[in-house]
Amino acid sequence: MSGEPIASVGASPIRALCFDVFGTVVDWRSSIAREVRALARQRAIRVDANDFADRWRAGYVPAMQRVRAQALGWTNIDELHRLILEDVLRDLAITAFDGADKAHLTLAWHRLRAWPDVVRGLKRLKSHYTIATLSNGNISLLNDLSKNAGLPWDVLFSAELFQHYKPDPETYLGAARLLGLAPNEVMMVAAHRSDLRAAAGCGLATALVERSLEYGAGRHPEPGPDPGFDFNARDLNDLATLLGC
Amino acid sequence: MSGEPIASVGASPIRALCFDVFGTVVDWRSSIAREVRALARQRAIRVDANDFADRWRAGYVPAMQRVRAQALGWTNIDELHRLILEDVLRDLAITAFDGADKAHLTLAWHRLRAWPDVVRGLKRLKSHYTIATLSNGNISLLNDLSKNAGLPWDVLFSAELFQHYKPDPETYLGAARLLGLAPNEVMMVAAHRSDLRAAAGCGLATALVERSLEYGAGRHPEPGPDPGFDFNARDLNDLATLLGC
Repeated sequence: MSGEPIASVGASPIRALCFDVFGTVVDWRSSIAREVRALARQRAIRVDANDFADRWRAGYVPAMQRVRAQALGWTNIDELHRLILEDVLRDLAITAFDGADKAHLTLAWHRLRAWPDVVRGLKRLKSHYTIATLSNGNISLLNDLSKNAGLPWDVLFSAELFQHYKPDPETYLGAARLLGLAPNEVMMVAAHRSDLRAAAGCGLATALVERSLEYGAGRHPEPGPDPGFDFNARDLNDLATLLGC
Repeated sequence: MSGEPIASVGASPIRALCFDVFGTVVDWRSSIAREVRALARQRAIRVDANDFADRWRAGYVPAMQRVRAQALGWTNIDELHRLILEDVLRDLAITAFDGADKAHLTLAWHRLRAWPDVVRGLKRLKSHYTIATLSNGNISLLNDLSKNAGLPWDVLFSAELFQHYKPDPETYLGAARLLGLAPNEVMMVAAHRSDLRAAAGCGLATALVERSLEYGAGRHPEPGPDPGFDFNARDLNDLATLLGC
């Protein structure tokens, strides 16, 4: 049974929390590096696995930008991950991975591991709020990842449902509409300021989660809290406390 | 952590189960009748609450049919329930319910109670399969109902996402596509043969769940199992046993 919402921003009670996933909920960098390292060992080649993960991730925003700018028709994240992987392998002159290896590695994004606070934090938040993903990852990726990690979402929202990638407003407004809520009854929760700024531009409340290790120790481009957002949380347990759970 | 799928139909392993909700998972008739009875008592009028529920539900397929035939633009189930409610009140010459009463009663569909086997059966099934709704109910209805009843879905699929009501093929094929699965890796689970026949026509596997009390005791139009479907289950615990959970 769920309790009543207990946090407000201004006069508006918050009823649902929409979570960014890559970086905010799951640790993509160490998860991808671990799988690249294991495969490289099997194929008896030397790869800087952290650098490989960084390069793969670096291709992500430009690839989505091609879809957002309609240079490319709707292409889901599995397909974009595979396209970027080919670029990374070419740039690093890696030829030891065959088709099955590349398919396996592309699905490593379905096996990303959650940050250690996530399962308990989400369970606490779920007792008083609707908790949903709002991710650029496709539904099958979000489902696989969530089943693997035991994430107790109420709803999976994906850019795929709206055929628009974040930060397009169709994503934030689409999630609020499907929840039957006004935008200011929904809070976007993310580790990335650009995502939160776009959500705020659509009228959503915002919570910044600190993920200082997302890009590796000491490599966060914008560390620390930001008073421009409605809440700043150290992790999802801290967010649950801030929101009265 | 989830186990491997363990049931197959022909050569194809079943990886996901998509559930009809009204009637299959929740007992709409007794839930609606209970709320109608309570409101009638408050307004000091006499209403045959079971008959009221039956009339409301009887308007459901014709209302969706108007959307399916494009006589009406996309209209979600909350809106259709409200339109049908006005017809029922007019037909029964009930004038004691004001606007707030009608809004409250329309949301009774968000508070439907699950059949007693459902929570345990779904938990067992979830350990080996993806479990999703595939309902004509809108997402906010499915979310409210599932949070109230503690239903542990992996994914909520609704006709609303496809802008097509069941039994249109866009719903069954859309769910399989979003799951990244072939139609024959998905099984439709429903208490209604028309739903299952349409799913089978799209290549999905089928499981009929016996809900002999859906329309009231002794009033089921098509009782008993049907060898035309891949599985016949007495309830969701029986289905979990049949599927090896």
